[in-house]
Amino acid sequence: MLPDPIQNLIFALERLPGIGPKTASRLAFFLLRAPEEVSGQLAEALTDIKTRIAFCQECFNITTAGRERCEICEGAQRDGSMICVVEEPLDVLAFERISAYKGKYHILQGVLSPIEGIGPDDLKIRALLERIQRGGVKEVILATNPSMEGEATAQYLYPRLQALGVRVTRLARGLPVGGDLEYADQNTLLRALSGRQEME
Amino acid sequence: MLPDPIQNLIFALERLPGIGPKTASRLAFFLLRAPEEVSGQLAEALTDIKTRIAFCQECFNITTAGRERCEICEGAQRDGSMICVVEEPLDVLAFERISAYKGKYHILQGVLSPIEGIGPDDLKIRALLERIQRGGVKEVILATNPSMEGEATAQYLYPRLQALGVRVTRLARGLPVGGDLEYADQNTLLRALSGRQEME
Repeated sequence: MLPDPIQNLIFALERLPGIGPKTASRLAFFLLRAPEEVSGQLAEALTDIKTRIAFCQECFNITTAGRERCEICEGAQRDGSMICVVEEPLDVLAFERISAYKGKYHILQGVLSPIEGIGPDDLKIRALLERIQRGGVKEVILATNPSMEGEATAQYLYPRLQALGVRVTRLARGLPVGGDLEYADQNTLLRALSGRQEME
Repeated sequence: MLPDPIQNLIFALERLPGIGPKTASRLAFFLLRAPEEVSGQLAEALTDIKTRIAFCQECFNITTAGRERCEICEGAQRDGSMICVVEEPLDVLAFERISAYKGKYHILQGVLSPIEGIGPDDLKIRALLERIQRGGVKEVILATNPSMEGEATAQYLYPRLQALGVRVTRLARGLPVGGDLEYADQNTLLRALSGRQEME
């Protein structure tokens, strides 16, 4: 019933995660009515990410197209003996913001998720193991999210990394700074208790 | 910190209604990782709606670019003496699905919303009044949504339409078919009571 171009836009929007048929048609009609600039800008940005962005062949972080390695992997001042394993490029940004980590990264580009059909081969796991086999790495910090999938991914990686003779660590779990003990969920409180540390 | 192309995509996505900074970056990174086809299809559809879709100059429904009037306005079998005033093209689809309405439509392309800064001049209200002044219209059905904004828009239109000497009606409000009286909100129940009809 709807003209093809609108139907196509609704279909294309529905392919995005978290966007169902209702939201897709609401967005499509918004874009139809909005100034051409709004949809034009989006269309251009969509094309740009595919032509102007590439993945670093070492750590799989995002980098400018045409470069083989990202700035961090090429940076001489970064400690190549430590690799922090994260799920997404945005996680690298979070670490870089605190300016406390001087090692390198490895971006898995996702997490293991049997429900969504994402297995080890869909992530950059083999590349991580090969990278460690090439030598020079002493510690791998598993910094996947403290979620069910992130935890499962860390558990999957742990024996495989250990077999390569590197130290394997995981980010501390506990009460978030500024949080309220009263509102902490049970698992967080359990972790905070079992991971308690000596006062300094 | 993020490469320009990704930052641009996040900005472009944030301009869509209901999409905040977090959702925008989640979508941007999804599109970055997704096959080129996903973003390509979306980019193409976005361009297409602007080049291949136009608005009917009579009722402001969507139509194929190059046509001045939509199929419904051109349809000889449609009753031009009735105009059903709706907010969006999707509302026309809802009416067409029940196949019970044989009149024509007028699409306001939105509702009055002081909060969003949408006033009478932003909607196709003047065009509606002019259309009625050209004559031939006997009844105008106000079919804006039964929401606060839809109601306000109907209230705004009512005296202006009445002044033109046409019959002005509003869609019945009451209990939805298949609904449960127990769960009906107070306003719906009030409307259902005050609008009660003789058993037939």
